[in-house]
Amino acid sequence: MRGVVMHAPGDVRVEQRDDPQILEPTDAIIRTAAVCICGSDLWPYRGIEKLNGPAPMGHEYVGVVEQIGDAVKNIKVGDFVVGSFFASDNTCEICQAGYQSRCVHNVIMGSIGTQAELVRIPLADGTLVATPSVPDPSLIPSLLAASDVLGTGWFAAVAAEAGPGKTVAVVGDGAVGLLAILAAKRLGADRIIAMSRHADRQALAREFGATDIVEQRGDEGVAKIKELTDGLGAHSVIEAVGTQESMEQAIRSTRPGGHVGYVGVTYEVELNGLDLFFSGVHLHGGPAPVRRFLPELIRLIWDRKIDPGKVFDLELPLDQAAEGYKAMDERRAIKVLLRV
Amino acid sequence: MRGVVMHAPGDVRVEQRDDPQILEPTDAIIRTAAVCICGSDLWPYRGIEKLNGPAPMGHEYVGVVEQIGDAVKNIKVGDFVVGSFFASDNTCEICQAGYQSRCVHNVIMGSIGTQAELVRIPLADGTLVATPSVPDPSLIPSLLAASDVLGTGWFAAVAAEAGPGKTVAVVGDGAVGLLAILAAKRLGADRIIAMSRHADRQALAREFGATDIVEQRGDEGVAKIKELTDGLGAHSVIEAVGTQESMEQAIRSTRPGGHVGYVGVTYEVELNGLDLFFSGVHLHGGPAPVRRFLPELIRLIWDRKIDPGKVFDLELPLDQAAEGYKAMDERRAIKVLLRV
Repeated sequence: MRGVVMHAPGDVRVEQRDDPQILEPTDAIIRTAAVCICGSDLWPYRGIEKLNGPAPMGHEYVGVVEQIGDAVKNIKVGDFVVGSFFASDNTCEICQAGYQSRCVHNVIMGSIGTQAELVRIPLADGTLVATPSVPDPSLIPSLLAASDVLGTGWFAAVAAEAGPGKTVAVVGDGAVGLLAILAAKRLGADRIIAMSRHADRQALAREFGATDIVEQRGDEGVAKIKELTDGLGAHSVIEAVGTQESMEQAIRSTRPGGHVGYVGVTYEVELNGLDLFFSGVHLHGGPAPVRRFLPELIRLIWDRKIDPGKVFDLELPLDQAAEGYKAMDERRAIKVLLRV
Repeated sequence: MRGVVMHAPGDVRVEQRDDPQILEPTDAIIRTAAVCICGSDLWPYRGIEKLNGPAPMGHEYVGVVEQIGDAVKNIKVGDFVVGSFFASDNTCEICQAGYQSRCVHNVIMGSIGTQAELVRIPLADGTLVATPSVPDPSLIPSLLAASDVLGTGWFAAVAAEAGPGKTVAVVGDGAVGLLAILAAKRLGADRIIAMSRHADRQALAREFGATDIVEQRGDEGVAKIKELTDGLGAHSVIEAVGTQESMEQAIRSTRPGGHVGYVGVTYEVELNGLDLFFSGVHLHGGPAPVRRFLPELIRLIWDRKIDPGKVFDLELPLDQAAEGYKAMDERRAIKVLLRV
């Protein structure tokens, strides 16, 4: 089968890889319908995350089940399924509390690499959620978005306690930030402030539910959020970047007692204890437990209540994955879908 | 009047200070019945927090109202009152949300210095809570504890979401940590693990509701908490120290999706972003909004349902404040009450 392999920073190739096999009785093999490139795939692409030799890439996927292990009970061959970037049993105490990304048996799908024609899915019964039937092709981008960026943006909005009566600010205008706006809107937020300086992303932000746009960053951005919130700061702030500046901007834009939901991977971030102490905010985030939200997100997409697939502004065949990485790295594309 | 003044690290004196005056129509003057020395008073005493010249000390107090400004409506001369370490209007949006320590008009009582015979209380209507009548002397230590250490421990337990079905671990066996145990017990926690290596404090921890004692710290302490919680970590962890080691110990002892309530002042703490991200915990804390809890705490004390005054293991007259600081600094006393 064909699959994407990163050999070095900036060096992404589509190669022949061995077809995956059932290794555990709880495994399934799926044939992907579409996969995509994540902002976090750019960390090794840019040399920030270290690469130990050639690595299969990707952790977002939708597709059709081709084969199941003997112990798989809920998922059938022929099902169209959505999974997320952590395989999880969905039965342990941590999963049951809604933190499937930290399942005691979790397997990180990035280590398997889903940017490929066939993918082995561990703990298939816990990990995969089947759609009601084979979806109309127009739904595939949105279902694929549920696999990570929508689920992550949704978790960020939930972690930030976005909801009725709340003013929500969103730091980051990538796919996750934009879909966090959509989530905050669905969760009933009164006012949603998108922090963005790119016209195309601002337009999508407004389409997803943003009521205000703030172009300033850092101190000026914080001052602007305060100005829009009677000097108090937002009730809920979503952090979807993961840099020192963006984390500080998020915390400082939140009123005392407010909530910061952070989902940007915080490489090279150090939080000053005393600043955090006196901020008085609630801080919650980490790798999103997307599995918690999948049934609800699939239903909203199926019923065409939300259209998160709009974040894909470039679609390429799998063979052109290298161009997809390049377009995202150069910020020519918000998010790239790879047709398989 | 007499009042405590710190001249330099280790140099605490009781001196004649000017009697306080009503400066704003919202002020009240109280005659203190008892005051106390806080763990945070030891930061400047030990030279960790910088002192800019002689400073009046103290921020915990109970006493009788002697005088009120023209705008004070709820508090009357003769009332016996409890306040906390931030004066707050209790009407602004932040106060109404329960974060009175970050009131938009807050005044930090430490800047006024309550270890004195008379104290000016700004925003008296918002800040002070009157007891049902003049209390029996046996209740004074507990009411004084409500002013800070009990209120702070209570907030930490609430921030950590201690409650039924939860295992709670408490890092720190000072007065705040011990009273956080009492709070977790009252809030209905199933199991409370005190991290302490001092026999006298362990005994008080057990009296307040601790079911388990862990003497280990750092990596060993974390391993022991995991061992006691099926390898998962506690649901709720209370941090009541404020050092790098204690914050890391608290975060690492918490299961993914669990809650850390931190109230130790985090001088010189830096939190690694990536460790925090992958911990998946909720983090909330800061200067406790004690005012939120005062009516409930006063009622519990008045009805003799709780006896937080037990944390005072040394009682001295105000004139011997210097000996009180010394005893706490040398850990000969958990907490010192100064009779006025």
